[in-house]
Amino acid sequence: MRYLRGMESRTEINELGEFGLIHRLTENLPQYHASTRFGVGDDAAVIDAGEEFILVSTDMLTEGIHFNLMYTPLKHLGYKSVVVNLSDIYAMNGRPEQITVSLALSNRFSVEAVEELYSGIRLACERYKIDLIGGDTTSSAGGLVISVTCIGRVAKDQVVYRAGARENDLIVLSGDVGGAYMGLQILEREKHVFLETNGTQPELEGFDYLLERQLKPEARADVIQHLAELKVKPTSMIDVSDGLASEVLHLCAESGTGCRIFEAKLPIDQLTFDTANSFNIDPTTCGLNGGEDYELLFTIAPSEFEKIKGDPHFTVIGHMSDPEAGKTLCPRNGEDTVLQAQGWDAFRA
Amino acid sequence: MRYLRGMESRTEINELGEFGLIHRLTENLPQYHASTRFGVGDDAAVIDAGEEFILVSTDMLTEGIHFNLMYTPLKHLGYKSVVVNLSDIYAMNGRPEQITVSLALSNRFSVEAVEELYSGIRLACERYKIDLIGGDTTSSAGGLVISVTCIGRVAKDQVVYRAGARENDLIVLSGDVGGAYMGLQILEREKHVFLETNGTQPELEGFDYLLERQLKPEARADVIQHLAELKVKPTSMIDVSDGLASEVLHLCAESGTGCRIFEAKLPIDQLTFDTANSFNIDPTTCGLNGGEDYELLFTIAPSEFEKIKGDPHFTVIGHMSDPEAGKTLCPRNGEDTVLQAQGWDAFRA
Repeated sequence: MRYLRGMESRTEINELGEFGLIHRLTENLPQYHASTRFGVGDDAAVIDAGEEFILVSTDMLTEGIHFNLMYTPLKHLGYKSVVVNLSDIYAMNGRPEQITVSLALSNRFSVEAVEELYSGIRLACERYKIDLIGGDTTSSAGGLVISVTCIGRVAKDQVVYRAGARENDLIVLSGDVGGAYMGLQILEREKHVFLETNGTQPELEGFDYLLERQLKPEARADVIQHLAELKVKPTSMIDVSDGLASEVLHLCAESGTGCRIFEAKLPIDQLTFDTANSFNIDPTTCGLNGGEDYELLFTIAPSEFEKIKGDPHFTVIGHMSDPEAGKTLCPRNGEDTVLQAQGWDAFRA
Repeated sequence: MRYLRGMESRTEINELGEFGLIHRLTENLPQYHASTRFGVGDDAAVIDAGEEFILVSTDMLTEGIHFNLMYTPLKHLGYKSVVVNLSDIYAMNGRPEQITVSLALSNRFSVEAVEELYSGIRLACERYKIDLIGGDTTSSAGGLVISVTCIGRVAKDQVVYRAGARENDLIVLSGDVGGAYMGLQILEREKHVFLETNGTQPELEGFDYLLERQLKPEARADVIQHLAELKVKPTSMIDVSDGLASEVLHLCAESGTGCRIFEAKLPIDQLTFDTANSFNIDPTTCGLNGGEDYELLFTIAPSEFEKIKGDPHFTVIGHMSDPEAGKTLCPRNGEDTVLQAQGWDAFRA
């Protein structure tokens, strides 16, 4: 009894961080089935299903870490919990088709509250044409926990991994970055005002775009569709959940390349830019490290550039380089610096 | 802000129970993909993957509800969290091949503790030949939450659903029931002694079988293999997680049958029987409602009886009947009664 006290040494999880912990737990995993084509280490796992690959991604959202119910409407939370998983399937160039949803609920939640959460889940399923095929619903002695697993498909010759980028490939981003992070800053500021003034209603007007990026993000199904129409198959791809810098470094690490990212090219919306300035946050830091944007970051061969040139969906933010050249951020002014991830880490939040 | 307070009416979740809540949340779900062959309402969902069906099951275990870390070794917990999912795939007559594991960890957990948990996960993967292909590891403001999703396969003509039993089919159970429940009673008793005496070490000797049934159950891969060798394909099947009575009623409900279960036929181990008596618990109640046995309950056509007659793996505990005849428990002595589920319910625990 009192099992937890019996451990002889103790390393804190935040000494390793989320990625370090996952690496330690999953290194040297044996593999028994030929059908397992790719396991831990990409946006989704890849299973051989004969004619096609089946893709599997999973994400867990926990109250107090990933969301605060004081300002997160349950319907939006349900919607977002689905979308973040779909995004992982799109990041493999796949089509999400099914999800399972598991919930741990404290007795604080009424049936009506759970139905509100589910209305958002159903809305996301409707919008993205996803079948909800199962799950588990149980009680929690702590807060709300939502675990969604998404199953998708991709033609075998169309799957895109994080590994695959080559030197000189262009680094391309869909949409813009930093908005979700500034949305969170606004919600946190208004929460403090509300608490300190005993109930002043929040001033959220004019920040719709940022709030939507935070509370009700969309997954870029349209980008995957558009790339297919353009006949562009990325050489590597990842979704921007932890922050752009972190994701660029993942692509470099898995592909064995260096990179050059140009600060002046980062697509940051004007409202994100202005709001960051009003919070005394550097808009570039916000764009590079904000996280939760659910945009797609990918690389293409230089020969494909003509196909996406001037396309409003895409911004070329840099290129892959010789691994010896390192991972470089080229600022608007001044000298090149090392690109570093200060991305959101679930264990440092 | 304070979104949760805005709800106008409030229905408590335990008014509906787990099954009632799931039914309410998942009724009239639309379906967009022909590949979705069966969604919510069986041990696993069924996806058409061309040559075979892909099976998907998922379970969430939460601290303080499904396990108590005071007497649950983390390694056993990791093992069990995998096994309960494999059991769902076997209950579809399938072969589990891959799992994803998501963890929400509070800062109470050290890296060493998580590694201990993972050592059990790895052991289960090794024993059942399962590939760990992904997951999510995040922090929790509450207790430990483990969510496992299992992917399996089954030949299209071999899948077995809960629906499919017919009048007069024999109801068959693998192994014995009630042991896991009595194991839990012993652990709870010793926990109280420990707490009340400020540290008297628990007396667990002689109860190995029951403790193992509770802390480190096995999934009946061997039963599925054995049925295949006998060329017996069940007409319906389910695993015994919530309790035998509850599972029999599920098979009846999905198959549209009644049933007759014979008390005298229930396979209850001698140690379970004696321990139940020493706790003043009726062994039959324990066998019918204990739960967490992870045995397989299935039905076969009467013409198949010769194939399993006298087989030590199996016990025929009753038969399906005309739905009009109801669901009946035929006791050793006295009159027939209505079979009722008092199974473990996550929202009434």
